[in-house]
Amino acid sequence: MQRPRTDLEENREKLIKCAEAIIREHGAIDFTMADLAAEAGMSQTNVFRFFENKDALAEAMAGRWFAELIEIVEDLVEADMPARQKLFEFFARRLAIKRARFKENPELFRSYMELGEQHFEVVRGYVDLNDHFMAIILAEAMEEGYFEGLELDEIVSLVNAMVQPFCNPMLIKDMMPLANETRLQQVIDTILAGLKARPLDPPQKKAVLHLAK
Amino acid sequence: MQRPRTDLEENREKLIKCAEAIIREHGAIDFTMADLAAEAGMSQTNVFRFFENKDALAEAMAGRWFAELIEIVEDLVEADMPARQKLFEFFARRLAIKRARFKENPELFRSYMELGEQHFEVVRGYVDLNDHFMAIILAEAMEEGYFEGLELDEIVSLVNAMVQPFCNPMLIKDMMPLANETRLQQVIDTILAGLKARPLDPPQKKAVLHLAK
Repeated sequence: MQRPRTDLEENREKLIKCAEAIIREHGAIDFTMADLAAEAGMSQTNVFRFFENKDALAEAMAGRWFAELIEIVEDLVEADMPARQKLFEFFARRLAIKRARFKENPELFRSYMELGEQHFEVVRGYVDLNDHFMAIILAEAMEEGYFEGLELDEIVSLVNAMVQPFCNPMLIKDMMPLANETRLQQVIDTILAGLKARPLDPPQKKAVLHLAK
Repeated sequence: MQRPRTDLEENREKLIKCAEAIIREHGAIDFTMADLAAEAGMSQTNVFRFFENKDALAEAMAGRWFAELIEIVEDLVEADMPARQKLFEFFARRLAIKRARFKENPELFRSYMELGEQHFEVVRGYVDLNDHFMAIILAEAMEEGYFEGLELDEIVSLVNAMVQPFCNPMLIKDMMPLANETRLQQVIDTILAGLKARPLDPPQKKAVLHLAK
């Protein structure tokens, strides 16, 4: 891939900063490329040289948001450590970054979440990539003897279900007091010690189906 | 407590339906008592006879939202069944109701969440009540030998952390495909089998603190 010119990079960076200022102030929903041009003091035609539409802008912003998080995970997957520690670090390192970002600027954090909801097809790719790396770590844990009798896909879903307060940025505001590293370690250890295949009790399922009507 | 007059009840019910229509259409944030009067075809003075302000209205709406959920939990706490099943039902029965409500009207569901965020002091009471009932069930599980070495408060927090997709209505839209009853049973069993006091590893905490800077 061709290396982008510095001028292009600089202008894109400037426009992203302007976009951040707008969404922080007014939210991400009604924000338009015309607002962006006004905020940046550029003509709309000029803005379109750097981002052809709001989707392209959102993609660039998501790229910045996830770059650091993905890098951490890539390094971690390569690292030589026991699966228990790796799984802990997988969540703890990103939790620390997200928590710091939230504390630095709660409004901007919230606006990024809103932007992500509006452009979920962009976010989806990063979520899938993340699940892919988590699956590698969980497969290492399987080799170490954890998760007896379960399939990898199922393990990924169940671990995702049990660690939401430590990884879902939508929960960060409400869950920050709960989601500390000590609890994360306890959750990881609970998962490693307790997650395995078990027969289900049919009577309990029946009771739920009855109530769901 | 004196039984409210039927006329009062009926008008409050009518106004709540009008309020639901407004928040479903326009969201809960900018909604005013003047909007409510217009929607109901009443004078504002008349509306204030039934709800003295938006807080009083929000409280009544929250009361309706939680009444069924709290009733289920109250019945369950009294029920004679093993802690494992009780804990499962505690989440499964409410999950079924929330899922049904979401499917029936996703916009209204979302608007209720928004309203709850705006009037969190009202919601807080119900959340605490719910935690109180969960603590009773978890204490029964402790008597059955689960959660060795942990304090009840800590168990409540950790269980809350691990069941978010099954109980947090903010997650229902994204988590519905993940949060089914089969997985809930697996999560409950994982918690019961794996959650107990363990010594923590100091080196891991240090690594996280470093990254959090």
